[in-house]
Amino acid sequence: SSEVLEQERNKSNVNADSLSTFLFTKEGRDRKQRVLKTLQGEKVFDKSQNYFAGRIDRFETALARAKKLAQIHSRESWTQEERVVANELISEPGPYGLHESMFLITLRDQGTPEQHEKFLRPAEQYKYIGCYAQTELGHGSNVRGLETTATWNPDDKTFTIHSPTLTSSKWWIGSLGRTANHAVVMAQLIINGKGMGPHPFVVQIRDLQTHQPLENVYVGDIGPKFGYNTMDNGYLLFNKVKVPHISMLAKFSGVDPKTNQYVKPASASLVFGTLTWVRSTIVLQSGGVLARGVTIATRYCAVRHQFQDRDAPEWHKGENQVLNYTTVQIRLLPLLATTFALHFTGKGMMALYGANQKKMSQDVGKVGGAQRGAGPEETNAGSDLLADLHATSCGLKSLASFTAVEGLEVCRRACGGHGYSSFSGIGPWYADYLPTATWEGDNYMLTQQVARYLLKSARSVLKGNEPTNDTTAILSNFLQKQDTGAAFDVLGNDSDVVAAFAWRSAFLTFAALKHRDEQKRSWNSLLVDFYRLSRAHSQYMVVKNFYETLQSASTDLDVETTGIMHKLFRLYALHTLEQEASEFYTSSAVTVRQIELARISTVMKLLEEIRPHAVKLVDSWEFPDWQLDSSLGRYDGKVYEDMFYRASELNPLNKVTVDPYPDSPTLFKQNDAGAMKAKL
Amino acid sequence: SSEVLEQERNKSNVNADSLSTFLFTKEGRDRKQRVLKTLQGEKVFDKSQNYFAGRIDRFETALARAKKLAQIHSRESWTQEERVVANELISEPGPYGLHESMFLITLRDQGTPEQHEKFLRPAEQYKYIGCYAQTELGHGSNVRGLETTATWNPDDKTFTIHSPTLTSSKWWIGSLGRTANHAVVMAQLIINGKGMGPHPFVVQIRDLQTHQPLENVYVGDIGPKFGYNTMDNGYLLFNKVKVPHISMLAKFSGVDPKTNQYVKPASASLVFGTLTWVRSTIVLQSGGVLARGVTIATRYCAVRHQFQDRDAPEWHKGENQVLNYTTVQIRLLPLLATTFALHFTGKGMMALYGANQKKMSQDVGKVGGAQRGAGPEETNAGSDLLADLHATSCGLKSLASFTAVEGLEVCRRACGGHGYSSFSGIGPWYADYLPTATWEGDNYMLTQQVARYLLKSARSVLKGNEPTNDTTAILSNFLQKQDTGAAFDVLGNDSDVVAAFAWRSAFLTFAALKHRDEQKRSWNSLLVDFYRLSRAHSQYMVVKNFYETLQSASTDLDVETTGIMHKLFRLYALHTLEQEASEFYTSSAVTVRQIELARISTVMKLLEEIRPHAVKLVDSWEFPDWQLDSSLGRYDGKVYEDMFYRASELNPLNKVTVDPYPDSPTLFKQNDAGAMKAKL
Ligand SMILES: Cc1cc2nc3c(=O)[nH]c(=O)nc-3n(C[C@H](O)[C@H](O)[C@H](O)COP(=O)(O)OP(=O)(O)OC[C@H]3O[C@@H](n4cnc5c(N)ncnc54)[C@H](O)[C@@H]3O)c2cc1C
Ligand SMILES: Cc1cc2nc3c(=O)[nH]c(=O)nc-3n(C[C@H](O)[C@H](O)[C@H](O)COP(=O)(O)OP(=O)(O)OC[C@H]3O[C@@H](n4cnc5c(N)ncnc54)[C@H](O)[C@@H]3O)c2cc1C
Repeated sequence: SSEVLEQERNKSNVNADSLSTFLFTKEGRDRKQRVLKTLQGEKVFDKSQNYFAGRIDRFETALARAKKLAQIHSRESWTQEERVVANELISEPGPYGLHESMFLITLRDQGTPEQHEKFLRPAEQYKYIGCYAQTELGHGSNVRGLETTATWNPDDKTFTIHSPTLTSSKWWIGSLGRTANHAVVMAQLIINGKGMGPHPFVVQIRDLQTHQPLENVYVGDIGPKFGYNTMDNGYLLFNKVKVPHISMLAKFSGVDPKTNQYVKPASASLVFGTLTWVRSTIVLQSGGVLARGVTIATRYCAVRHQFQDRDAPEWHKGENQVLNYTTVQIRLLPLLATTFALHFTGKGMMALYGANQKKMSQDVGKVGGAQRGAGPEETNAGSDLLADLHATSCGLKSLASFTAVEGLEVCRRACGGHGYSSFSGIGPWYADYLPTATWEGDNYMLTQQVARYLLKSARSVLKGNEPTNDTTAILSNFLQKQDTGAAFDVLGNDSDVVAAFAWRSAFLTFAALKHRDEQKRSWNSLLVDFYRLSRAHSQYMVVKNFYETLQSASTDLDVETTGIMHKLFRLYALHTLEQEASEFYTSSAVTVRQIELARISTVMKLLEEIRPHAVKLVDSWEFPDWQLDSSLGRYDGKVYEDMFYRASELNPLNKVTVDPYPDSPTLFKQNDAGAMKAKL
Repeated sequence: SSEVLEQERNKSNVNADSLSTFLFTKEGRDRKQRVLKTLQGEKVFDKSQNYFAGRIDRFETALARAKKLAQIHSRESWTQEERVVANELISEPGPYGLHESMFLITLRDQGTPEQHEKFLRPAEQYKYIGCYAQTELGHGSNVRGLETTATWNPDDKTFTIHSPTLTSSKWWIGSLGRTANHAVVMAQLIINGKGMGPHPFVVQIRDLQTHQPLENVYVGDIGPKFGYNTMDNGYLLFNKVKVPHISMLAKFSGVDPKTNQYVKPASASLVFGTLTWVRSTIVLQSGGVLARGVTIATRYCAVRHQFQDRDAPEWHKGENQVLNYTTVQIRLLPLLATTFALHFTGKGMMALYGANQKKMSQDVGKVGGAQRGAGPEETNAGSDLLADLHATSCGLKSLASFTAVEGLEVCRRACGGHGYSSFSGIGPWYADYLPTATWEGDNYMLTQQVARYLLKSARSVLKGNEPTNDTTAILSNFLQKQDTGAAFDVLGNDSDVVAAFAWRSAFLTFAALKHRDEQKRSWNSLLVDFYRLSRAHSQYMVVKNFYETLQSASTDLDVETTGIMHKLFRLYALHTLEQEASEFYTSSAVTVRQIELARISTVMKLLEEIRPHAVKLVDSWEFPDWQLDSSLGRYDGKVYEDMFYRASELNPLNKVTVDPYPDSPTLFKQNDAGAMKAKL
């Protein structure tokens, strides 16, 4: 089996090397190799027992790894990029996860210089180990509904942190269950009996020496999950715990200890900036997340042979690679195209984010305070400047993470029975990634914010305002041409494909506007339409980003590779168009005939043309075997050897001898499974 | 929170009790209560540590449970039905799983009376504990490609069982890894150097006393999986192991020891009958499988409150039940309708199967032998009698198991963050059910058999043959009317909805036939179309079964309940129609306007009408809390109390105290997690 992949590689003239550089830059690729070498040199990062160990052992190993990583980081003076790469290569959430991200970021972004001194410094040195405790048992998405209170005591200038109900228990908090000794706690600030909304407080929760919970603090791990079991997500309750004035993070708002008055936030846009940044990161990563599954499934389906082709000539006795069956291709190759589409879109988002941050920092002080209404659709961006970017990041986060989640399961299933083994490497990866569809804004709810922004833009265009950005431009273009109608040559012309996606998005926007503004339909009754609208608009942005990236790629890539990338663009766009057919022709962006042709002929043709390059294309993602940790996805194609090795040599259950008879009370005659446990 | 569900129940006049009886019969409901009581009386079935334990502990508990079940079974003289119910209530695969199903069934159906005496009797008494070893590392779906050989030795009248390659290792075999001492091994029969195809052999693999593998037998567990970890799926290799003549199961074929000649199979249809039966069972169960997720999510989304409705009046301060949001309804309520649709379809299938079996046993001997070609689409039913049932079972197995798999994940996600906790009960259930999409015929590949049957039927209709069954009837109806065109009142008339589904299926059949027979396109290039065709035809059958069941339901159910069931029928049918819109209007079964109306108005209206009855409707599935083992799906709605209890009281990780500092080599300062382990 092991030669198959080499043959595949020889048959294709895609230049995987230059494509890798195009995707990740030379510097990024070198960084990855360097970090990989460091990690592989440390025994604690050995992955061979990962799939076998139970939760407690896995958590213990994850803690050992987290410690080692922190040591290496400071020993080697790693940059932030190097640390990110290390996490990606290890591919497992760890007990310092929330300390190193949200805890530090919140202290930095929302703390005053004095608070930086008091909290951020010791946190950077891992003296304080923290978490970000916002969600409660009863409230997650609705942050305004949080029940934990922080009551200002004018007498002794302290806050009392309290959990008045069972549902006010903090819940799901990463790094809290066993590891953290501090928490940023989001609590309802109460001054003089008046609620001022949720604010962040830094609270010590465990003793720095004994690591036991402090008095009146109830804290623990919330138990096993679908994935993420190397992380100790925790719960936390306070029974009237007093904290000093400095505990309230005061960069944007605070309590004046002299007057006992609330000091109003200057601008919350920077906070929303963080959320936008987090979501943009999710978009950027989604391509790579999906690419892991696509790499594994593509390689395995090239190695896997099953059945003869029904129309194969008599003399052709051998079995067929399953990657040659069109029902396998239609599942994997559009996803392969999607990995690039998402990657380019993520890069586009990040660039936009950077540009906006720059512009914003020049404009600081000019923008007004954020208003938050009752519904999630009201969580506005706080500033018009950010509005477009905010909406874009919401829509794309939702689309990209769903696409990755659902695509990974398609990849797993394409591997047939072996896809179900943990050794496939897809299942465990999928299970850990899954919550991305729920956190940082539930994927269904986020779409309300996109719709809200599009409706607002459409109202502005209808009023006759000049387009100020791409969104208003496509809306006003649609308005001008809707009576003439569209005649896009989607099968022949790439820029027409992009225009057809824009047309559909604009059509749905004005349809939704009519329902809301003219027919006065309730917001709730329109949520399903808003979901579709957001999805349509986000698909337009992905298609546009893919298209524009290729426009500028020709200088970096050779002709063959560029040619295949164009085919991948067309496959992504036309396959999506065909999947969403009914919206496309309800909007008259395309004709029924065009859809039929796309489906029966163009897409099938593209599959055939891309097929020979599939292995080379996944190679360009350049995942080291160590990262994939997959029998099915090995670079050398030694699938069966590796499955067999793991099952027979590494599997602790085989150290158990059972007594199989129902009438015997003995279960295990012998159990040497413990001997397989990793030494830490 | 706990009163919410009672309020929901009081608001609806659906009669959950009579609906339960309609679904399961009085006898079935009583049986379930009886078995439940027995199981709850035995400590070994206590579920409280299920979600926490690692694989080895879970396997040990599963073994203890399997033993106890076998004891109870014989002690209480349980019927087969009672045993099935017990397994459903326990809801966990166990180490005797394949022994008690495929091993016993194969011995019974394919053994001679002499073999029954030698193998079946000791197997029934658990002296022999067996498994069904067909799949190999290199071959699963393509059974003809198996590499294990069984070579007939004319000299000493034995067979030599041998595994010539690594890929010939048996793999995935349930109950084999640690438990079985016997296996039914599918091996290529070789007589005088000539291969006769795969045949079943009974082979002892472990010593009956020591339980150690016999000489030249290499056997073990294949390692951890996405789910199914309470089962010891195993691998198995033979190094030239000799077995006596009686080992080859000889009911349908054999080797004559005197002449050393192969004795031809009389008829293989009964074997195919078993496959059809297994698939029909999968269809029947899929409704209940999905209903578990729908029950959990519906109850939780009724209990869960989050945000105010945006259009709620000022004085209405309370938060909204998330089940009131239309984006939650559009995910859950069509799935609720689907649970009933699948259940009725499964019952229909089983009835058809029973009728056919009866007819077949009368016709035995009249039908010819089975022919198996190279591709999966050729695995024909062996007899024309079975052909329709066979195709139906393939198409419906594929549709039903995909619908259940994908629906479960939709339910899990609808629960927001808490859906990700194991305590939701959905994730673990999903993970164990998932392989149903792959085994008993991979869901993608099965569709080729449906297409093949439909093409054959269409050819017969085109030749002018009279319709002999429903399939040919809808095809010939379409042929007669296709020029006139269809004008179905899908929004106003239920039987027209069924007719529209039939029309689309017939349209796609003739389109596929044209591609294959007129345009001579390759089989492989049509697989994607075949997949759609099979899906369309299967959806037609589901809609038809649902419709017909309700036609006859009016005598058993009161007017209100029947009324809601009709709405559920319409919701299932119109939501499906809208999801598959483009096929419906390409075939002219409906107009674009109808689809628009269905989507914007009819479906939304149905959601509103069904919403008040959702909790009562899931109640009618009558899952005991013990079976669901879910915090979110509790009958009494005490969601948060239960989550908190499990996390704080049952969670072994909370018995661990860590040392959190990177520079300290200590990981666990204290570890008392072992104390939580279940006593067996
Ligand atoms: C693995 C994991 C790690 C986490 N880590 C942290 C952490 O470190 N710190 C932290 O603070 N939190 C954390 N969380 C919590 C996470 O942020 C929340 O679970 C997430 O925001 C979802 O909120 P929820 O559970 O309240 O969903 P809910 O709002 O309860 O959603 C339930 C359902 O209702 C729907 N819904 C709710 N409101 C509306 C509406 N207005 N309109 C339409 N539909 C609606 C949703 O779509 C969903 O289907 C974590 C969660 C997970 C799963
Ligand atoms: C949990 C579990 C338990 C099991 N228990 C048992 C057991 O007890 N005994 C036993 O014998 N087996 C068992 N099996 C094996 C199971 O029956 C096979 O895994 C299953 O039949 C799929 O076969 P495969 O893995 O060879 O898939 P493959 O055929 O390798 O499929 C791989 C991919 O190729 C595609 N493909 C393959 N051929 C074609 C074609 N001709 N046309 C189009 N597409 C094609 C498939 O759709 C799939 O996407 C078990 C499997 C699992 C996961």
